Amino acid sequence: MVCNMITVIKPGATQQQIDGLLNWFHARGLKTNVSEGEFQTVIGLIGDVGRVDVDLVKGLEIVDSVKRISDPFKRANRKFHPADTIVEISENVKIGGGNFQIIAGPCSVESEEQILTIAKSVKASGAGLLRGGAFKPRTSPYAFQGLHADGIELLEKAKAQTGLPIVTEIMNTLHLEMFKNVDIIQVGARNMQNFEMLKELGKSGKPILLKRGLANTLEELLMSAEYIMAEGNENVILCERGIRTFETYTRNTLDLSSVPVLKKLTHLPIIIDPSHAIGIAEHVKPMSLAAAACGADGLIIEVHNDPKNALCDGAQSLTPEEFGDLAKRVQAVREVVQS
Amino acid sequence: MVCNMITVIKPGATQQQIDGLLNWFHARGLKTNVSEGEFQTVIGLIGDVGRVDVDLVKGLEIVDSVKRISDPFKRANRKFHPADTIVEISENVKIGGGNFQIIAGPCSVESEEQILTIAKSVKASGAGLLRGGAFKPRTSPYAFQGLHADGIELLEKAKAQTGLPIVTEIMNTLHLEMFKNVDIIQVGARNMQNFEMLKELGKSGKPILLKRGLANTLEELLMSAEYIMAEGNENVILCERGIRTFETYTRNTLDLSSVPVLKKLTHLPIIIDPSHAIGIAEHVKPMSLAAAACGADGLIIEVHNDPKNALCDGAQSLTPEEFGDLAKRVQAVREVVQS
Amino acid sequence: MVCNMITVIKPGATQQQIDGLLNWFHARGLKTNVSEGEFQTVIGLIGDVGRVDVDLVKGLEIVDSVKRISDPFKRANRKFHPADTIVEISENVKIGGGNFQIIAGPCSVESEEQILTIAKSVKASGAGLLRGGAFKPRTSPYAFQGLHADGIELLEKAKAQTGLPIVTEIMNTLHLEMFKNVDIIQVGARNMQNFEMLKELGKSGKPILLKRGLANTLEELLMSAEYIMAEGNENVILCERGIRTFETYTRNTLDLSSVPVLKKLTHLPIIIDPSHAIGIAEHVKPMSLAAAACGADGLIIEVHNDPKNALCDGAQSLTPEEFGDLAKRVQAVREVVQS
Amino acid sequence: MVCNMITVIKPGATQQQIDGLLNWFHARGLKTNVSEGEFQTVIGLIGDVGRVDVDLVKGLEIVDSVKRISDPFKRANRKFHPADTIVEISENVKIGGGNFQIIAGPCSVESEEQILTIAKSVKASGAGLLRGGAFKPRTSPYAFQGLHADGIELLEKAKAQTGLPIVTEIMNTLHLEMFKNVDIIQVGARNMQNFEMLKELGKSGKPILLKRGLANTLEELLMSAEYIMAEGNENVILCERGIRTFETYTRNTLDLSSVPVLKKLTHLPIIIDPSHAIGIAEHVKPMSLAAAACGADGLIIEVHNDPKNALCDGAQSLTPEEFGDLAKRVQAVREVVQS
Repeated sequence: MVCNMITVIKPGATQQQIDGLLNWFHARGLKTNVSEGEFQTVIGLIGDVGRVDVDLVKGLEIVDSVKRISDPFKRANRKFHPADTIVEISENVKIGGGNFQIIAGPCSVESEEQILTIAKSVKASGAGLLRGGAFKPRTSPYAFQGLHADGIELLEKAKAQTGLPIVTEIMNTLHLEMFKNVDIIQVGARNMQNFEMLKELGKSGKPILLKRGLANTLEELLMSAEYIMAEGNENVILCERGIRTFETYTRNTLDLSSVPVLKKLTHLPIIIDPSHAIGIAEHVKPMSLAAAACGADGLIIEVHNDPKNALCDGAQSLTPEEFGDLAKRVQAVREVVQS
Repeated sequence: MVCNMITVIKPGATQQQIDGLLNWFHARGLKTNVSEGEFQTVIGLIGDVGRVDVDLVKGLEIVDSVKRISDPFKRANRKFHPADTIVEISENVKIGGGNFQIIAGPCSVESEEQILTIAKSVKASGAGLLRGGAFKPRTSPYAFQGLHADGIELLEKAKAQTGLPIVTEIMNTLHLEMFKNVDIIQVGARNMQNFEMLKELGKSGKPILLKRGLANTLEELLMSAEYIMAEGNENVILCERGIRTFETYTRNTLDLSSVPVLKKLTHLPIIIDPSHAIGIAEHVKPMSLAAAACGADGLIIEVHNDPKNALCDGAQSLTPEEFGDLAKRVQAVREVVQS
Repeated sequence: MVCNMITVIKPGATQQQIDGLLNWFHARGLKTNVSEGEFQTVIGLIGDVGRVDVDLVKGLEIVDSVKRISDPFKRANRKFHPADTIVEISENVKIGGGNFQIIAGPCSVESEEQILTIAKSVKASGAGLLRGGAFKPRTSPYAFQGLHADGIELLEKAKAQTGLPIVTEIMNTLHLEMFKNVDIIQVGARNMQNFEMLKELGKSGKPILLKRGLANTLEELLMSAEYIMAEGNENVILCERGIRTFETYTRNTLDLSSVPVLKKLTHLPIIIDPSHAIGIAEHVKPMSLAAAACGADGLIIEVHNDPKNALCDGAQSLTPEEFGDLAKRVQAVREVVQS
Repeated sequence: MVCNMITVIKPGATQQQIDGLLNWFHARGLKTNVSEGEFQTVIGLIGDVGRVDVDLVKGLEIVDSVKRISDPFKRANRKFHPADTIVEISENVKIGGGNFQIIAGPCSVESEEQILTIAKSVKASGAGLLRGGAFKPRTSPYAFQGLHADGIELLEKAKAQTGLPIVTEIMNTLHLEMFKNVDIIQVGARNMQNFEMLKELGKSGKPILLKRGLANTLEELLMSAEYIMAEGNENVILCERGIRTFETYTRNTLDLSSVPVLKKLTHLPIIIDPSHAIGIAEHVKPMSLAAAACGADGLIIEVHNDPKNALCDGAQSLTPEEFGDLAKRVQAVREVVQS
C-alpha cells in the first residue's frame, strides 16, 4: 500500500502536539505511519487525502512541510491503466492507440451550401471527421453566437451525405437532446471547469472532446477528464488548443510539449488544435506537422471555402486546397516518425 | 456620431481594392468614412463592429492595421452611465456609490451550529452580509462538494436569526429555484465565461456577485457583466479574487489596481476577496486595509469559528476575533481616505 | 540540526538500490538519515543541498518524490535574522524598521532647471530622497537612453542644493566610479538576474535598491538579494514594481501582497513603485495609499513639473501639486494603520 | 513614404487643441498628415516615432487612441532584408537559409575527459557544433557556477581534437578576451535585456546566439537582436528555449510557433533548445522532431556521458546513444518536410 501524502514535523515539536495531529488525521479517516529519524519526524498518510486541506496542514505550528505524493487523477492515470484508450466513433473511425484522425471543418456552420461544400472537400482530402460550430462561445453578448439547432441539423445533413462523423460544441446541458446524433461533443476551453456540465456529459456516455482551458495546467485538464470518467464515461479525448501567454503575435501559445507529457501521464488520446491556438492561417501547416512529429493522436483544423467571408475566425481558416496539402504532408511526417 | 473602428490601408493599394473592402464593410451593415491623407488612407467604420472579425480584416493584403476604438462593453460603461450603480440588497444594505459592505462567513456551510455561531459573531463585528458555500467548485470530483440544498436552508436559518442577507455560489442554473431566498447569487471564477449561465442569471433579476476568472482581463470581466446586463439585470457587483501569476507564496495574486481602473471604466460596484486571493490567514488583514485604501466598495472575508477543523480552506479563514479587529481598522482607513 | 531535503523512496526499491542512492548523496557531501516506515522509506538530507539537482533525483527510478525543505535564501532570511534591517542613508534618512520614505523625482534627468525645480518641490512636499534616471534601459536601441554622466552630475547638484540623498539606476558596473556620490544604486527589473552585476554591487558596499523582475517570483527576488549580501553588503532594499500579467489596462500588475509576504520571509525593507507598475498618473495615488495601508516601508513616485513634455514616461508622472496631496494622505493612512 | 503612427482625435476637439498637438509633434521632429473625416480626425505621423511616448499621447484629453504602425525593429526586419541571413561559422558550418545545425554537448564543462568524450561522440552522431557551459547563471549564489576560464580552455581542446566549433555562454563582457576562440557566444535568457552587454557584443562582431527571455515576447527578442545589429554585427542567431507559463510538468513551455512567426518577421536564423525548455530527457526527442517539422534552423541538445552524475541539469541530458538516434530521425523529418 502506498503512502499518499507525507507531513514533515518541525524539530522542536512535543509528543503531545504530534499525537494531536495524528488524531486529527485519524478523524479524517486516514491511516498514519510515523517514521522517526534523527533529525525529523515524518508522518506518512494512507487513504483518501483528497479531503485534507494541504494549505491548512502546512499552516500548523508544528508542521514544516507537506507533500502530496499520489497523482490526484485516478481513472485517467496511465499507472492504473497502461494501455492506450481507443475512442471508437464508428467502425472505421477510431482515435488513439495508433489511430490518427484529422477533424476538419468551419469555425461556424453558416448555411447548407457552406457546410456541404466543405464536408465533401475535406472528406476527399483525408479528414476523418467533420467539425462545425452551432453554439459559439463569444466574449461579447452582441457577437454572432451560431445557428444553434439549425446548425446541428445542417451538420447532420452533411454527415448523411458524406458519412463523416460530426463534432460540435455544447454550451448548456439543457441542449443535450439536440446532440443525440452528434458523434463527439466538444467542451470548450471556457467550460473546462464547468464541473456540473462535465458530470452531465459523464452520464451521457457520449465521446467527449475536452479542450484545455486558457490558463489551466495539464493536471487540471486531467482532473476535468476525471469528472467525466467518474460518471462512467471513459470516452474522453483531450485537446490542446493553446494557452494564454504574453506573446501577442499568436492568439495563444500552442503547448506542443503537452503531447509527450500527457502520453506519459494518461492513456487518453490527445489531439491538437493549431487553428485556434495560433489564429493565423499560414502558420497552421507547420504547426500541424510539428504536432504529428511529436506524437499527437489527431488534429482539428479549420477549413472554410471562403475564409474572407466567414462569419467568424476567417483569419485562421485554410482553404480546401491548403487543407489537402496539409493532410498529405502530415501523413508523410507520421510515417517517418513511426518507422 | 463616433467612429467605432479604423482601418489603415497600405500605401500601394488600388482604388479597386479599396472599393472592394468598402463594399465588404457595407455588406456587414457598417457605415464607412474614408479619410485620404498624403501617406495613407484611413477608413473609419461606424456601426456595430462587434460582428467584424478584426483578425480577418488585419489579414487582408491591402490592410496595414486595424484598431477598434469604442469600448466593447456598453451597459456597464461609465461613459454612458456616469453615476455609480448602487445595488440595493435591502433597505439598510446597499453596495456601491459610497456604500461599503463587508460580506463575511465560512468557505463552506458545515452545520447549523457552525453557521449560526459565525453569523452572529460576524454581525456583531460589523459584517453587513453573510457568505457560505453550499455548492463548492472543486478541481477534484473526489473532494467535498458542499451540503447543497441543506446548506442553503442553513443559510436561510442564519438569515432569519440575524437579519443578515445571504450570499452563496451557484454552479448550475437548474438549481435556481433553490436560490429564491438568497440575496446575492455568486458566480465563481471558473464560471465567469459560462455564458449560458450568465444569460439565465440576467433573466433572474437577482443581484449577482461576478468573480473575475483566474486569468481573465478586466475587459473580459466587464463583457461577462454585459451578458447579465443585456438580459435586463443591472444588479451586478464585480469581484476581484486574485489572478493566476508565477508567484507561489500566495495562492493567487490580488490585483488591487483593478479597483481604480474599474472605477474609471464602469459604474458597477467593485469588491475585493483577499481570503481566496492570498490563501494565508495572517495576510488577509493588511490586504483588506489596502483594498479599503484604494477605494473598493466592499470586502468578502472568510471567517470560521474553528479554522483548524474547517472542511475547506481553513488556512485562509480568520477567527471571529481577528475579523472583528479587521473590520474596525478597515473602517478607520476608509474615514481617512474619504476625508 | 534540521533536515534540508527529503527524498521519498518507491515501495518496491531494493536495499541495494537504496544503498546506491545513499552513497551518491554522501559523495556530494551530504549527511543522510533514513526513516523506514511501514509503507515508505524516507531519506532526510542534511547539508548544503544547493548543489543537488532536484530534477535529476526526481527522475531516478526508485524515487517517488523529492522535497526541498529549507529556504534557499540565508542572509536575507528572517528566521536567522529576526530584527528588521534598517538601511541608513544618512543620519536623518533611514529605510525599514518603521522608517518610511518617499523617493520622488522624474523618470529621466533632462536638464538642470528640470531636476532642481522638481527636487525643491518634492522636498517641500515631504519626499525624503530624490530619484532621476541617468541611464535608462529601453527596449529599443533607438529610444532616448538618458544623459549618462551629465545626468548624474545634475543629480549631484540637486543633492547639494536640497540635501536630498539621490537614487539612480546602474546598467553597467564599469560605470561604478560615476556612482560614488549616489546614495542608493538602483538595479532595474531587467537586471534582477544579472548575477555578475549583483556580485559587483555586493562588493561596492553601497545601499542597493533591487527591483523585482518582470516575471520573477519573490523567492527569486530574495535569491538575487542573496547574491549581493553574500559579498558582504547587507544594505539591500527590495522593490515591487509590478509584474507582467495578461491585464492590459495597466502596464504591469502591482503585486501588493508581496509586502506582507516579504515582511514575513525577510528582514529587508520593501518599497513600492506604483508609477511604473500602473503607468497611469491618476491611479498612482490610490495605489500609494494601499501600499501604505498594507505595511510598505516606502514609495518611489514619479514627479515631473511638466508631464506632457517629459522625455519618457510622462503618462505616469504626477505634478508637484498632485504629489504633495499624495504625500499628505499617505502619512494619514500610515498613522491609522500603526495606531 | 509610410506613416509610422496614427493618432485618432476625439470628436469634440477644437481646432486650437488640434494645432497644439500638431506643434507638439513637430517639436519632436515628426512630420504630420491630417486626414479629416466626417466623424473623426486622424493624424498620421511620419518619422522616428521611437522617441514619442505612446502612453503619454493616449493620455491627452483630445486623443481617442494611438496606434504605432511600423515595426519597431529595422535591421532584423525581413521587410527590409527579404533574404535569409546565413551565419557562417566556418567554411563547412553555416546556420540559416536552409543550413540546419545541431549544437550538442553538456550543460557544464566538468573535466577534460568528460568534454572530450562527449565531443567525439556527438560529432560521430552528426552534431555540427559543441556546446558546454563555463559560466553558469544560477539562481542561487551558493550553487555550482562553472569552471570559468578552465572550462573555456577545455572547450578549446575539444575543438582542437574534433574540429567542432564551440558555443558557450558569456555573463560579463569583461570576460570577452577569454572568448576570443569561441565560435558562437551565447547570451542567456536572463541577460536578454542586459542592453549594455548586447551593445558590447555588437561591437565584438562575433556570432551571437541570443536566447529568448523567460517571459519576453518575440518583439522584445527582436529588439534585443536590434541592439546587437545596431552596432554593426549582423551575425545573430535567435533561440527559443521555453517561456514561463503556469504548467508545472515541464520546466518551461516550449513555444514552437515562434518558428514560423519569426521566419515571417525576420531574416535571422532560429534554433530551438528543447532540453532546457522541457527539462525531462525522455521528452527531448519528440520535441526535437517537432522543431524540425515546423522549420527551425537548428537545435541545441544537452548530451552527457553520465547524466546521473552530471553537475547540473542531468535530468534533461541525453546519453550519446539517445542523441545519435535523435539526430538520425531529425534528419528524416527534415527530408520529408522539405520535399
